[in-house]
Amino acid sequence: MATKTSPLSGFPELLPAARVVEREVIASLSRTFELHGFANIETRAVEPIDVLLGKGETSKEVYVLERLQKEQGDRQPSDAGVGLHFDLTVPFARYVLEHAGHLEFPFRRFQIQPAWRGERPQEGRYRQFTQADVDIVGRDVLPFHHDVEVMRVMVEALDALPIPPVSFQFNNRKLIQGFYRGLGLPDLETAIRTIDKLDKLPAEKVAELLVSDAGATPEQAQRCLELATIRVSDTSFVERVRALGVEDDLLEEGLTELAAVVEGCAAAAPATVTVEANLRIARGLDYYTGTVVEIFMAGYERLKSVGGGGRYDALASDGRTTYPGVGVSFGVSRSLIPLLADGVLAGSRAVPSAVLVAVTDEDTRDRSDLVAASLRASGVPCEVAASAQKFGKQIRYAERRGIPFVWFVQDDGTHQVKDIRTGDQGEADPATWTPPAEDLRPQVHTKEQPQ
Amino acid sequence: MATKTSPLSGFPELLPAARVVEREVIASLSRTFELHGFANIETRAVEPIDVLLGKGETSKEVYVLERLQKEQGDRQPSDAGVGLHFDLTVPFARYVLEHAGHLEFPFRRFQIQPAWRGERPQEGRYRQFTQADVDIVGRDVLPFHHDVEVMRVMVEALDALPIPPVSFQFNNRKLIQGFYRGLGLPDLETAIRTIDKLDKLPAEKVAELLVSDAGATPEQAQRCLELATIRVSDTSFVERVRALGVEDDLLEEGLTELAAVVEGCAAAAPATVTVEANLRIARGLDYYTGTVVEIFMAGYERLKSVGGGGRYDALASDGRTTYPGVGVSFGVSRSLIPLLADGVLAGSRAVPSAVLVAVTDEDTRDRSDLVAASLRASGVPCEVAASAQKFGKQIRYAERRGIPFVWFVQDDGTHQVKDIRTGDQGEADPATWTPPAEDLRPQVHTKEQPQ
Repeated sequence: MATKTSPLSGFPELLPAARVVEREVIASLSRTFELHGFANIETRAVEPIDVLLGKGETSKEVYVLERLQKEQGDRQPSDAGVGLHFDLTVPFARYVLEHAGHLEFPFRRFQIQPAWRGERPQEGRYRQFTQADVDIVGRDVLPFHHDVEVMRVMVEALDALPIPPVSFQFNNRKLIQGFYRGLGLPDLETAIRTIDKLDKLPAEKVAELLVSDAGATPEQAQRCLELATIRVSDTSFVERVRALGVEDDLLEEGLTELAAVVEGCAAAAPATVTVEANLRIARGLDYYTGTVVEIFMAGYERLKSVGGGGRYDALASDGRTTYPGVGVSFGVSRSLIPLLADGVLAGSRAVPSAVLVAVTDEDTRDRSDLVAASLRASGVPCEVAASAQKFGKQIRYAERRGIPFVWFVQDDGTHQVKDIRTGDQGEADPATWTPPAEDLRPQVHTKEQPQ
Repeated sequence: MATKTSPLSGFPELLPAARVVEREVIASLSRTFELHGFANIETRAVEPIDVLLGKGETSKEVYVLERLQKEQGDRQPSDAGVGLHFDLTVPFARYVLEHAGHLEFPFRRFQIQPAWRGERPQEGRYRQFTQADVDIVGRDVLPFHHDVEVMRVMVEALDALPIPPVSFQFNNRKLIQGFYRGLGLPDLETAIRTIDKLDKLPAEKVAELLVSDAGATPEQAQRCLELATIRVSDTSFVERVRALGVEDDLLEEGLTELAAVVEGCAAAAPATVTVEANLRIARGLDYYTGTVVEIFMAGYERLKSVGGGGRYDALASDGRTTYPGVGVSFGVSRSLIPLLADGVLAGSRAVPSAVLVAVTDEDTRDRSDLVAASLRASGVPCEVAASAQKFGKQIRYAERRGIPFVWFVQDDGTHQVKDIRTGDQGEADPATWTPPAEDLRPQVHTKEQPQ
């Protein structure tokens, strides 16, 4: 028996009406991914610590599991050294390696699951959060056209959601690396990491750091800044980069790829999604090797990106075989929880029921149960009143839950159904009556976001 | 980059075709629960240790969380003393208390989530497993008719699943306690715990223990055994219990309630569900106070119960308000993973795609993309071939994934679609063609279970 409540910072929970929104978002994302032939998988919540620490720098975020009574139990291999996954990419890479013999490549999968990070909670950053990832992974090779494909899929998926407009900001690691190499920069990695600070530091400070830390000349630093400030919503960036006068094969490859991604996504991009080439996007030093993307949500720039991803030429490798991949992730919790808190999104009611079947008295509850069974046979979610209160109270019972219709069984065997929002009431047959389509299930209501 | 695989005992993972089955089962359960007006919630994966240990005896199963780098970080309240939930009842009780001010009572919810237990893995028992729980919780009071209702809902929900026949075996704690009290047993709790051993020990041994441990006379022990062997699929148990000659008000109440549950569920019970009164079912000493149930699956009795639940008059209490509840849980992983392993259930294909759109050469990939977009606009899941191999190879690509149709764009602008199972091929229009309904999405295939 629970006797006390313990809100935990960073572990948000949704009330039923908000959960309606989250479920509809997850269902909508799944529909789009499946229309494009992506198979759903789930991975276990835990991974061995050494798998989780493969990326090195994220170690501080990992939650490790210990059995509470491990000293008295029989220790097993999995007792020690497992932790909760902190994203869906690391477990997916491990899944691909572990099950490679049973998968067909290119393997197209989506995965919508919680992940956990022990970091300090803030708006949009939680200790438990749900992500939606979509990836394509090849064995040994993965043609570039999959970069365009997977990004288009996410464009379509987010366009179908009832969220504010989003912006896909693309870049390409080959473009950056090729440009820096062609420019003659001595330390590419430091230069990329330094340019990545442009959203926190003023441009002149970044230029100084490029000189002091990355060994650039002031002239090279200036070119790096010029590259990083290019941001357009078409392929005109190609000419603008060329105008900077740097020549390099890798740069050319990056320009071609980025142009193809921007063009391909722009062609798919509907009203609520904008697609840009933003040449300052680098996504840290991660495992990305080509296409990179960050996704931002209008009015919620303070959350930073609500999604991102890119191309990794070696997502996984077992020594003999390498698995290149390309994918993109959308932060379901990161975007939805602020939108729900701000009232931008809301569920239309807290219960699935479209109808409350009233009970005249406890002796005739069976009669109401039969009506409910009949409505359910037509696919109408409904519930029978919990007690045979006065009808006014039963109507308020429905009202408090947002149930739009109340059903009355008359003593003469006829039936009446009342729309409690309008007061309209009329005779109805439980075998054939259905509510208007928009009342059948809870809907997601949207309002203009606050400015 | 993942470089090694680490199968973990007790953390099963499904391949894509098996995941099709799990998703369909979860979707089907959700449909039934929602038709009955139950709202979906999810609770966070972690609870404070003291909440998890409220039941005392389960402490050995709890996984505790520690931040890997906690010594160097800023400690926060939630860093210490949280563990993964081991069922969905304890977190639900805490959710009710924490959010009571925002919920309407009786609160009807379903919850389908993983839980974790650090116990030794075996068939049907995993360290991570998914459960589906459905409960009704009242504030201060909860009328008995909800016992019948929630059990009927689970009967309907399991009847709709593609699993072997299940048996609901009901009992009532008031019946047992009233009988023992009326019989004059000195130690009811020990007697209940002893009778619970009937599935492990022979009857005469249990009778001895009732005498030695529970202070029963040999004659009382005999009556207890007679009660426990009553097992019928109708309400005839009422007369058989009365024939044992014990009189007690609580016993009468229990008989009435159990008869109502058995009758109510039998009325709803379709072909694949059997409903019984089995008077040896006790469900340990838990928090149950009235109706109790255990669910068994035909051919899989070795798994013990695949579900269970009952009535608890104090699921949660904050000192001022008590929340009585009644609910029942179904072990999704416990039942499905053995069924999938035995081939009783299987997904018809590993991918959602109903169509593979072939690519003639890379220069005309756009043409195939347009066909795919057109099919998706009609709701047909499809994918475009990964590379412009010979058509024979593209057909085998589809075959290996179980994709039933391959689409060819002809140079003259016409289209052909081929059912690769039959070889039938004909002209088709991407704007209007749809596959037969049974090919649109992956299906769950069933076969007779092994004997």
